[in-house]
Formats: sequence, C-alpha cells, structure tokens
Amino acid sequence: MSSSGWILAVCLVVLGGSGHAVRAEEGPGSERNCSAIPPYLPPTAVNTTLRLRDLRESMIPLNISAYIIPATDAHLSEYIAPRDARLAWMSGFTGSAGTAVITQNKAVLWTDSRYWIQAERQMDCNWELERDASIRSITNWLIVEIPEGDQVGFDPFLFSVDTFGVYNTNLAPAGRILKSIPDNLVDKIWTDRPPLPPDNPMRLPDSVIERTWPMKVEQIRAQMSDNPYKPTAVLLSALDETAWLFNLRGNDIPFNPFFYSYTLLSMDQIWQVLLLFVHIERISEELKVYLNASCYVAYCVQLLEYSSVRTYLRNYLQGPNTRVWVGTEYTNQALYELITPEDKLLTSTYSPVLTTKAVKDATEQRILKEAHVRDAVAVMQLLLWLEKKVPEGTETELTAAQFVDQCRSKQKNSRGPSFETISASGPNAALAHYSDGTTDITRTVHWGTPSDFQKEAYTRVLMGNIEISRNIFPAGTRGVNMEMLGRRALWEVGLNYGHGTGHGVGNYFGVHEWPVGFQSNNIPFQEGMFTSIEPGYYKENDFGIRIEDIAVTVPATIKHSSNYLTFETVSLVPYDRKLINTSLLSPEQLHWLNSYYETIRSVVGPELEKQGLKEEYDWMIKHTAPFLTAGASAVISSVTLLVTVLASVLLHNLL
Amino acid sequence: MSSSGWILAVCLVVLGGSGHAVRAEEGPGSERNCSAIPPYLPPTAVNTTLRLRDLRESMIPLNISAYIIPATDAHLSEYIAPRDARLAWMSGFTGSAGTAVITQNKAVLWTDSRYWIQAERQMDCNWELERDASIRSITNWLIVEIPEGDQVGFDPFLFSVDTFGVYNTNLAPAGRILKSIPDNLVDKIWTDRPPLPPDNPMRLPDSVIERTWPMKVEQIRAQMSDNPYKPTAVLLSALDETAWLFNLRGNDIPFNPFFYSYTLLSMDQIWQVLLLFVHIERISEELKVYLNASCYVAYCVQLLEYSSVRTYLRNYLQGPNTRVWVGTEYTNQALYELITPEDKLLTSTYSPVLTTKAVKDATEQRILKEAHVRDAVAVMQLLLWLEKKVPEGTETELTAAQFVDQCRSKQKNSRGPSFETISASGPNAALAHYSDGTTDITRTVHWGTPSDFQKEAYTRVLMGNIEISRNIFPAGTRGVNMEMLGRRALWEVGLNYGHGTGHGVGNYFGVHEWPVGFQSNNIPFQEGMFTSIEPGYYKENDFGIRIEDIAVTVPATIKHSSNYLTFETVSLVPYDRKLINTSLLSPEQLHWLNSYYETIRSVVGPELEKQGLKEEYDWMIKHTAPFLTAGASAVISSVTLLVTVLASVLLHNLL
Repeated sequence: MSSSGWILAVCLVVLGGSGHAVRAEEGPGSERNCSAIPPYLPPTAVNTTLRLRDLRESMIPLNISAYIIPATDAHLSEYIAPRDARLAWMSGFTGSAGTAVITQNKAVLWTDSRYWIQAERQMDCNWELERDASIRSITNWLIVEIPEGDQVGFDPFLFSVDTFGVYNTNLAPAGRILKSIPDNLVDKIWTDRPPLPPDNPMRLPDSVIERTWPMKVEQIRAQMSDNPYKPTAVLLSALDETAWLFNLRGNDIPFNPFFYSYTLLSMDQIWQVLLLFVHIERISEELKVYLNASCYVAYCVQLLEYSSVRTYLRNYLQGPNTRVWVGTEYTNQALYELITPEDKLLTSTYSPVLTTKAVKDATEQRILKEAHVRDAVAVMQLLLWLEKKVPEGTETELTAAQFVDQCRSKQKNSRGPSFETISASGPNAALAHYSDGTTDITRTVHWGTPSDFQKEAYTRVLMGNIEISRNIFPAGTRGVNMEMLGRRALWEVGLNYGHGTGHGVGNYFGVHEWPVGFQSNNIPFQEGMFTSIEPGYYKENDFGIRIEDIAVTVPATIKHSSNYLTFETVSLVPYDRKLINTSLLSPEQLHWLNSYYETIRSVVGPELEKQGLKEEYDWMIKHTAPFLTAGASAVISSVTLLVTVLASVLLHNLL
Repeated sequence: MSSSGWILAVCLVVLGGSGHAVRAEEGPGSERNCSAIPPYLPPTAVNTTLRLRDLRESMIPLNISAYIIPATDAHLSEYIAPRDARLAWMSGFTGSAGTAVITQNKAVLWTDSRYWIQAERQMDCNWELERDASIRSITNWLIVEIPEGDQVGFDPFLFSVDTFGVYNTNLAPAGRILKSIPDNLVDKIWTDRPPLPPDNPMRLPDSVIERTWPMKVEQIRAQMSDNPYKPTAVLLSALDETAWLFNLRGNDIPFNPFFYSYTLLSMDQIWQVLLLFVHIERISEELKVYLNASCYVAYCVQLLEYSSVRTYLRNYLQGPNTRVWVGTEYTNQALYELITPEDKLLTSTYSPVLTTKAVKDATEQRILKEAHVRDAVAVMQLLLWLEKKVPEGTETELTAAQFVDQCRSKQKNSRGPSFETISASGPNAALAHYSDGTTDITRTVHWGTPSDFQKEAYTRVLMGNIEISRNIFPAGTRGVNMEMLGRRALWEVGLNYGHGTGHGVGNYFGVHEWPVGFQSNNIPFQEGMFTSIEPGYYKENDFGIRIEDIAVTVPATIKHSSNYLTFETVSLVPYDRKLINTSLLSPEQLHWLNSYYETIRSVVGPELEKQGLKEEYDWMIKHTAPFLTAGASAVISSVTLLVTVLASVLLHNLL
C-alpha cells in the first residue's frame, strides 16, 4: 500500500466575464420557483413529500413538536459517510453545512451563503430556506413556531456539547424543552440507508512516522499529569483523534482516511488502560499485534465493540475518583450526558490530542512539503492543458477535474484526491462551493479579456492572501486576530467574502484539520502548524474568485525579538498574471510575490526536470517571471495585452 | 452649574533616552527587596501586618481557607470611591486593576504588567506578586494552595456574573467550593473606612439632551418587546446605566460623574414601573418633580432606598410570569443569585441600555466634538509651555499636570478633568499607567536628541494609530478583529505592547465606556460610536510611548458599497514631528497624516484665533506643516535636525 499521498486539490474558478463561459448548463430554470402556479421545480430537486410524512408520523408518539436534523455524524465529522447523510436524504440538499427543523406543518433548512443557490436547486417546495445559519436564528424560529412548554426532539449523537449548550441556553429560558432521542428518527424511516463502508483500518508505514503510538500516548498522559484538575481519563470522539493517536487510517468517510471509533485513554493508578471502540471484525490479526491487543497493562490496547462505548463509559465512571477529560467541540452530547455529576468531568474546547496534533513534527512537516511539490506538478499540468483546451471549447468542468485527478494519480505515492476536485465557471463559480467539499489549493484563471473590475477584485483577493502570508506576529497570536488582513484590500473598495479565511491542514489526507485556522474558535498559532490562507470574492450570478494556499508557521527573522512567527507558503503554483494589476500592490507585496515565484522556480523546477516535463517547465518559468515595480509596469502591461488579445481572438472564433 | 465639560486629558510621556529626565525621583531604592537581610522597603510601601492579622482572624469562624478581594465596587465600576478601595487598603497597592487572595499564611496580589513596578513599590513583604493576572492563574494557585473540599470566601457584590462564572468553572471541578459572603470582611476590620461622598445627583440641562428620559425608557421598552424571550423587566446595575437612562449625574466616584444606584425597569401589563434605588435623602424636590416621583404609572419613577434593592428584586420575582433581563458583564453576583430559577432570567453580555447608549445621537456627537476642539487648545497650551519650560529644568511632571488642568479650567464649560492628568518621564514613562487611571489623549514628546531606536519605536506606534484610524470596514465589524492593525508595524520588528488598543468614550465625563472598543468582549462597531485608539510601546526602565486619539465611526465613501465605516479622529493635536521617521511610512499613511494636520488647522485654528492665542496658533501651524513624501524627505530631515540640535544645546546647558 502506498501511504503518503496528495494533500492538495485544485479549484479552477474560471472567470466568465467576457460574456462567454466554458459551459452553459445553468439558466433561469436552474432554481425552484415555489410562487409560480404550478410551482417550478428543476430536475435537480428531490421530492420529499413521502419521507416528510413518515417523519412527522414518527414524531407524534414521542410528543415532540419539532425535530432537529444536523448535517453531521456521531463524531462531528466534516465529511460524512452516505449512511450519515440524513439531512440530504430528508431535504434533498447535499451541501456540507446546514440544519433542518421539521414540525407538523413546516420543513425549514438553515444554511450559509455558500449554499443558498444550491439549496434552491435541490429542495422541493415542501421546504423553506432560512439564510441566517446561526443557532440563534434556529431557536428564534422555534420560539415563534411552537408554543411554550412544547418539546423539541434531537439526536444527542449528532450534537456536540457546545452546540447542545447553545441550543439549550436559547431555548430553556423561553420554556421550549429539548428532548434527547438517541434512536435517530430519520434512520427508522430510511429504508434504503447505505450499509457500513467495507474497508478495514490500516496502519501507517514506519517511514512516515516520527512518533509511535506509545510515544503519543505518553505525550497525552504527560499532559494529564500536568493538569491541575487531575483527570484520570481522556475520551476521544473525533475520528481524527483516534486515527492520529494510533497511527491508523481507514476509509469510512469520504476524503478523510478515518474509521468509526472512540478511544478512552486512562491513567488511573489501578486501571491504566487504552480502550479502543471499533467494529472489531475489521481489525486484522496484524493490527492486533501492532496494538498489543492481548495484554492488559499501560501500553496494551483493549478492543471493544464500537456500539458499546456508552456502556463502558458508564462503567468507567462508576470507579472511584474518576474524572474524564473531554473536548467540548468534538464530543457528542450522547456521551457527555453520561459524565455527570460535575466532579467527574474536565472540559476544554479541544481535547489534548487535538491541540498536540496541531503542531507537526519534523517528519510530518517534511512529508507535507514534499507532497505539495509533487502536487504543484500535477496542478501545473492541468493549467497548461486547460490553456490549450479551453479555446477549443471541448472541455467542461467535469473533464477538467478528471484530468487533474489523472495527473495526480501518476505522481509518486498518490492515493487519490483528498476530496472531490472542484472546477466551476461563470455563474457556477459564484458559488464558493460548487459541489460538496472544499479545496486546498485554489487558482482562479481567466481566458479572454478580464474586465477592470475582475482584475481589481482578483488583485485585491491576492493582496489579502499576501498580507496574511507575509504577516509577522508574536507566537501565540490567534488567527482570528489577523484574519482581517485577508479582507482589508477588498474592504477598501466595499467588497468582501462570506466564508472563513483558512483552516488547519492535517497529515495524510486530513484536509480540514481544526483547531488550527483563522476562526474565532481556533487555537493560537505556534511554530509548526499548517493552515490554508484562502480569501475570495464572489459576485452573484457573474463570477467568483478564490486564491488559496497552504502555509506553515515558521520563526520570523527580525531585529528585536526571537519569539515571532510568520508563514512559509508550501503551495507552489503561480497565480494568473493576467489578472494581477500590479499598480495596486504595495512595494512589500510585490517583493513577497517575486520571492514566492523565486521559490517556485527553485523548488518545483528541479522536480519538473526530474520528471522530464519540459513543456510544463517552460510554462512554469513563463508564469513565474519577476514582476517589475509599479514604475516599470509598462513592459508587463504590453505582454499581458498580447496574451489577452490572443485569447480573445481564439475565443471569438468559437462564439 | 456648567454642565458640558472636558472629555480629554493628556498624558505626557517624555522620552528620557538621552540620559536626562525631567525629574529623577526613582532609583534602585524605589522598589522593595524582600530577599535582602533585613528586607528593604521603600517609603511608599504600606505596613499591612495588623490588617492581615485581623482579616485572617475573621476568616476562621466562617470556615474559609482563602478570601478573594477584587479591586471593584458593587457596580463593577472602573473608578471606585475611596470607601470601596478595599484592595488598596488591604495591600497598599493602589493600581486600578488587581485581585488579592489571602490565606492563613499567604497574601498574594495578581496584577498586569502595567502595574508590576507600582506594586513592588507599594506592597510590604507580607505580599507576593503574581504576574499572570488571569482568573485561571488565580484559581490554579488556589488549587495548589488549599486542599480539595475547602471553601474560598468572596463578596458576591464585588463579582460580576461572568467573573463568578469563570472562578466557579475553574474551581468547582477541582472540588474547591466558592462561598458567598455578602457581608464584606474587609469592611468589618476597616475602622477608618471613608463615609459616603457628600454630593447629590443633578439633572443634565436640556441644552445637552436630545432624548429625554421617558424617550430613553421608551427605547428600552421597545427592545424588550422585540425580544423573543419576552423579558418583563430590565435590571440596571452599572452606575452609568442609571445615569444615562435618567439624564442624571453625580459625584460618588472619581472622574466619572455617577452616583450609587440601581434601576429596575419593568413592562409587565400589571406592574409597569420604574424603580430607582438611590440614597433617597440625596434627591432634591426639584429632581423628584423631574422624575415624576409621586405617581405610579408607566412613566413615573418610584424612589427606593439603595440598600433595599435585594428585597425589592426578590419581591418582584415572586410575581407571576416575571423574567428579568440582565447584562452579565455588569450585574453583580449578589443580585444575580436571587434571580432563579432559570425561567425567571434572560441574560446578554450587556444590558440593552449599554448597547443603546453606545451609539451617540447627533447632539451627543456635536458636544463631544466641540469639547475636543476646546481641549486641543488646552493641550497645545501645555505643549508650548513645556517647550519653553523643560529646558529650564524647573518643571516636574506634577507642575505640568497642574498647568494643563489650569489651561482646561479656563476653557468654556469646563467642569474639571475627567481623570487625573498623568505626565511621566524616563523610567516612570515605562509604566503605561504611572498613577491610577488612564487617559483620553496621549502625546509623547521628546526634548533632546532621540535615538534611532526611539524614533523607530515612536514612528511604528504612530503607524499603528494611523492604520486603525484609516481602516475601512463593514459596519458590524468587531474591534478585536482589527486591533492587530495597531500592533502590526511594531510586530514587524519584534516589538509589542501589553495593554488594550482602545475603549469606548462616553458623553459627559464617562471616560471609559464599555462595551465599545477593541477588546474581545466589545460589541461590533456601528455608526456613531466613539472609541480611543491608543497603541504604545514601553521599554522597561528606559522609556515609554503612547499615542492616543479619540475617533468616531463614520460612513466610508467607497466605490462598491454603502454600508462601510471608517474612523474620523476628533482629537486634534499634532504629534511630535521630531520623533517621526517618515521613511517608514507608506504613501497612504503619509497622506492620512497630512489630511489630519489639515483638519487640525481648519478646525482648531479658528478657535485659537477666537481666543486670541497668537503664540499657540503659530506653534500649531509650525507643528502641522505638511510632511513631504519619502522621495522629498531631505528637506524634512534638515528641519528636524535643526530642531533637535537646538533642543540638545539647550539641554546640554542644563546637565
């Protein structure tokens, strides 16, 4: 088995500003119109009448006036297996973020701006769309729709402790009562629910591991010892926590190589155990040896059935002086509600495994960086191929995605895409997420003549990317406190974007890896953390731009202090120079851009030569030519003009 | 009575980098040395042996192992009356921020970096100083020092709901039990505790009011109606809430014109009342008429004794379907603990009065701006006077402060300083707060030859001020998300500062007015909010810099959107140009600076002329001369050099 793999994918957001688009599937009929008589439904809409009827019937004997359906699974995973796609099955809406609430006479979906258009294409007229996706918006709606004293049902496995807390804080004072229903109501009516995925967990090869699993267990136990609240166990619920701790990988959910599991790691003096809750039949004999599964001391893993986690947790808590440490962001309410009274509990936002995992060791850093070099080759192959193919008009977003996946699969150690490759054009590109999932490297390209506004928007998005990338900050600064640097150049002219500015990146296929990033709930930056930097701009029904890179925090070399960090960009693909208006860039931004291009040449150049990709090498050299300062921009302009005119001529012949 | 007044004061942080200082009181003996034999105590240290003995004795019958003493009063006020300075009386430390914990064998003070040196000068060797001022640091200390199961006493009047919550969240899981003791232990042993302040509350004149108190009550009741949780009453605990609501002012605490009070504003259908809890004997007959104190309907104020607030709150809560809305940041635990069960309660971080008050109406904005113009005159008089006096060597920080207070008192409508004028030099200036309190305009000046490092540090602090001031951002952006712009130029070379970047500013003497500002608990910026912008830099035992202005949020004029804001600086005093290295400024920063100086000329110039202050006018014109761009900086440099040399010569004669 090849073990290392691709961390990167590409989102090709093709600007369609000159009145042409690579394909033209969309149109006025692509979204539902429920106020027409009869209502208009696009072919992408799902008929949910029968399943809504069944769900509503199942609510009656439980005496609940509303039922909440989140988009996640019992591990609060970002990507979920088809069997966990309850929200999608109920509503038709397949976006990754959203919440549904169903009452006896209404069915409502809350989702954020990335998905509004998609929801209007996928939902039938049984459903209403609410555009403020905050929990407060949901609970305010509930308070208006159902009377005081009524019950609101929910599956506690699908709520994190924090999420449940916010719902409860909003609903309880208003006298609407949350009712925990561990048997999921959707599962009961979902007759063709997909089965468990077939693949078994596998161990990572030693070549990619710096810390063995007993070393990692030791690291976590040391943090338990240091904690003044003296926890006796750590409960791990997020799938990447168990996968990371034991250096195991699986294939239960899309794009992330994880497997259904929980871990209870104790350090009681009496009962110092490691309980791994999995589907035991999937654990090979080799893995049992690897995990010391046949002994009962500190570094032996006891394998227990996945479904028995509540039973064993309850047992453990009955022991004397036990105290379980949980991260409230990734522990589900179904486990948390067992850990009472309060003196049995220690909470932090993230478990010690998640915060430890966020800092990459030297081996992890090396592997991530090497993967990015090889991925840069594949992405450059795509960009070159598109440059040739787009003028022919024969390629669609789909074939482009297939091509890049092919390029990647040829690269050493490739194990397939870390998620679905996305490419979108024209109005589709105005969706930040065209189909489910997100990206790790995003380049926006344009064939034709970009308008001044498109160039300005693109350049300001790039300025945001650069301003974060070149920022120097004290170690321990939170991403949320510098996130506005990604937006500031857009704000200056009244533009903005409606999504986050970056997320942590994991080793070996963990694409989005919280708790690192630029959101308010991310942990402070320390040396050795990987994050995406991904500002964008989206003009509805016109075009979309995103420029996304991965960067690692490294020490900054500065005059007066040693404990400062900056970012080193490890994505190594040039930007579309035709879209860059260099006169908007500050001298510092131009300098950063030229240094970055110099790095691409010195790092990706040898790899392209080694693989004998002469045409790609020339393409790379051409696209990483140094930008001149604003004073000398005349030369650049005329070159740009030439390319633009050429593309326009080619396109003109097609239209 | 004159009613409008000065909002601004000045902090003169005189750089002492050339080996001179305006005064030289400090020295190696100014801080205690408890490891010397015998311990060395400076004359500023307070002997606390007897009072600690008395307090410890009082703890024994209560069965508490530790007692927490915060620095605030029952209204969580920033400035407190002498009778509430329990922490200062117990420990000797008079800084505005700090917490003490006393056990039978230890006495410890936690305070932040602004006050470390001051604490070492004021505390005797009974006390330890802890330099991490977080609550977590205090509770971690308690968990180490006292055994599990022991009780920690506290006065619930001196804890906000939020603060109590953090203590409890940290201590309860570790089995240390918080014990509410409403009778303050310090008060019992403080035999010479100061009495109630003598002054009575006064109403504001109609000329400075746009909204009468019934209009404000109407605004708050409208928000109660709109709230989906249907609160029946709002409880106001912070002193500025009641003062704002009724357009009243008082003189109970230093620098802020407030009076001891609580308000319960209800809108029950049955019991629609306004209860004002005050020391009734202070309310004049005129005020009783103004407040409609003799009737019992919606817009009549019932006056009740200040000390009866708990009794009446308890009574109110026994009514049917009552729900009280409190802001957790400014409600004390002593009242909050009465409002149970949960369905009697609605919480938000800030009460609706605080969030409504944060947006200034047109009259308030006009008055605040006019006050700043007159204050600029006073500050310019000071700066000119200092320019002449410092070389003579006869002026100390104290006489400088007296002079500026004199200048101010001559200005129209002056009602005295909004807080103690601070001026500090040399090593003293390395304390961000030299004596208790903070400032609203701060200018750092230098006589002598500033070092390159001093100029760089000053310029980078100024760049931080400018970068925030000129920032354009969507309405609703939080200050905390742009705060780093105040630090970024310093971060670039590894410098930083240890305090916040700005706070809201109130009308009529409310100097610091949360919830506006750049801290994480401040509310999002809307049009019409006033905030300080005050980056700084402090080199310990060497020099300190702060540049502070007041600015108001105004609509930004930009291309693509109308709902963006920027800041308009209303402080109108030029910076010390000798300390500005213009080659570090970006073209945008230079442009902003020159526009600002142009505003000073056009706004303060006529006021100086009107007051016949010819010498000050010339000084202002000289100090607001436009800066040339970097390319033309040679001219500036030679002028700067001239001024510097001149000052050096003068100082040389003194030393």
